[in-house]
Amino acid sequence: MFIGIDIGGTNIKGVLTNRKGDIISFKKISTANNLAKIEYSICSLIKTLSSQKSGSKSIVKAAGIGSAGSIDTRKGIIITSPNIKSLNNYPLARKINKLTGLKVFLENDATAAIIGEWWKGNGRNFSNWIMLTLGTGIGGGVIINDQLFTGQSGSAMEAGHMTIDYKGKKCLCGNRGCLETYASATALVKLTRSKLKNHPSSTINKRIINDKLTSKIVFEEAVKGDLFAKDIFNEISFFIGIGISNLVNIFNPEAIILGGGLSKAHRLLLPNIKKVVAERALEGLKENVKFLTSMDFDKIAALGAAKITIDACK
Amino acid sequence: MFIGIDIGGTNIKGVLTNRKGDIISFKKISTANNLAKIEYSICSLIKTLSSQKSGSKSIVKAAGIGSAGSIDTRKGIIITSPNIKSLNNYPLARKINKLTGLKVFLENDATAAIIGEWWKGNGRNFSNWIMLTLGTGIGGGVIINDQLFTGQSGSAMEAGHMTIDYKGKKCLCGNRGCLETYASATALVKLTRSKLKNHPSSTINKRIINDKLTSKIVFEEAVKGDLFAKDIFNEISFFIGIGISNLVNIFNPEAIILGGGLSKAHRLLLPNIKKVVAERALEGLKENVKFLTSMDFDKIAALGAAKITIDACK
Repeated sequence: MFIGIDIGGTNIKGVLTNRKGDIISFKKISTANNLAKIEYSICSLIKTLSSQKSGSKSIVKAAGIGSAGSIDTRKGIIITSPNIKSLNNYPLARKINKLTGLKVFLENDATAAIIGEWWKGNGRNFSNWIMLTLGTGIGGGVIINDQLFTGQSGSAMEAGHMTIDYKGKKCLCGNRGCLETYASATALVKLTRSKLKNHPSSTINKRIINDKLTSKIVFEEAVKGDLFAKDIFNEISFFIGIGISNLVNIFNPEAIILGGGLSKAHRLLLPNIKKVVAERALEGLKENVKFLTSMDFDKIAALGAAKITIDACK
Repeated sequence: MFIGIDIGGTNIKGVLTNRKGDIISFKKISTANNLAKIEYSICSLIKTLSSQKSGSKSIVKAAGIGSAGSIDTRKGIIITSPNIKSLNNYPLARKINKLTGLKVFLENDATAAIIGEWWKGNGRNFSNWIMLTLGTGIGGGVIINDQLFTGQSGSAMEAGHMTIDYKGKKCLCGNRGCLETYASATALVKLTRSKLKNHPSSTINKRIINDKLTSKIVFEEAVKGDLFAKDIFNEISFFIGIGISNLVNIFNPEAIILGGGLSKAHRLLLPNIKKVVAERALEGLKENVKFLTSMDFDKIAALGAAKITIDACK
């Protein structure tokens, strides 16, 4: 048995799986904003999942962790994590190993997602494809000729930090105009807040309690038909379309697979994304791109983190 | 013996080479703006080069052509060529084959450049690296794990058509804010023209005859010390730096090699490019990138086109 953990900006998710990728158990908890609490959450998630296999003795061999940010996979260190600053330069793999006694492998969360999608998801039918994970931040992964491409030090495909407006908004990474400042779940909430005062009749207003607004609320109201909420998704999808056009022109891929929490709204996002790509990407490249969504938004990155561990323990 | 041709927006260049890559002869002529004339130029270049091998009988086996634009390499067709519109949807390989009797292979010019640099140039020491060709337009190529990456249909790495300002200048490709509208030789000339009237003391003014201004003139005046010309290169290098930051965040490469005519100005461009990348690209990725220039700006793409032909004729 193996455990896979996916640390997102909003939730920490965990799966217990066997070598074949059958998910025995799945749990998720909110992400704390404090390092000690995040570690405690991971350990308690590992403990809960380890005890899930009833009927037989559960032997968990190792755990894989996918985290946002640039990762030194060999050392198990998070180099920088723009959305969870407390994890910068943190030897997370060693820490969790000390606390649980398990072997621990660390990987970028978008890389974990693409490995999950490649192993058990919608990536199985393509040789050259891109995964874009739309969550608190935006991550990416790319499969080239049936192989995961990781770059010289394992940090490739930071697609969320691609500049789409060189004089644009300041990003947490230090750059300006990064895709994720326009098209992540965080950007969606900021955009909604900034425009909401001009839309007093939007049903989003009734959903805000204690000033707390989430992308999930905007999504639910858009699905119910709130025009302002729909407009927000339209605007966000425009920026996702710009980012994907760049990736199409750079990678000439067979398919783009959208993952991450925000991609649950694919019915609201995809029509305009496709329109923007048709308008912006180059002829000869854009015509043959297929658009898909993750097979399982919630579990795929955690499953991919488990797969990395399974392969590392062979 | 093999011939390699590089059709650029400004010049058409040709080399005659043996299988080992020794250049026996090199010629260049201006690019006409008319399809019949371009074909005539290519044929006369092939004829001149074919007759260059004195002392022994020159047997030219085949010719490789590198052209700007997205290319269908199997069919030998230029699908779209934003900078030389008359070549759109044109079966160039078949045409030149009919006119010369030689076997002809067609490839994207930036791909030809990276193959040349990989075979005989500064790419030999790296496994994961990018070539950015700065000319009339901007092209790119990428070597991943010692292999050329071409995408699903051979059109990958159209780095010049990466949006760096989504509401920016209209590009010839139909998109807005493409890197090449800010950082190509064409963009440099436009920028110089638009600002020159406010700089009557610039020595560039004395170099303009019949309203003809080229990037070469701006380069030469910058080298001589004209402050306005230097400012122009500074501004252009800022945009090249933005584009390279994106490529660093996406590919996590070992090296960036600058090619194309404009990269002859690398001494003017590189200091600011490096500064922008240090400010903008992600930590963990930007520290280990080496910056180099093409081993031979003029000949490398033509040599690469010949190499493609040598490999295809094996």
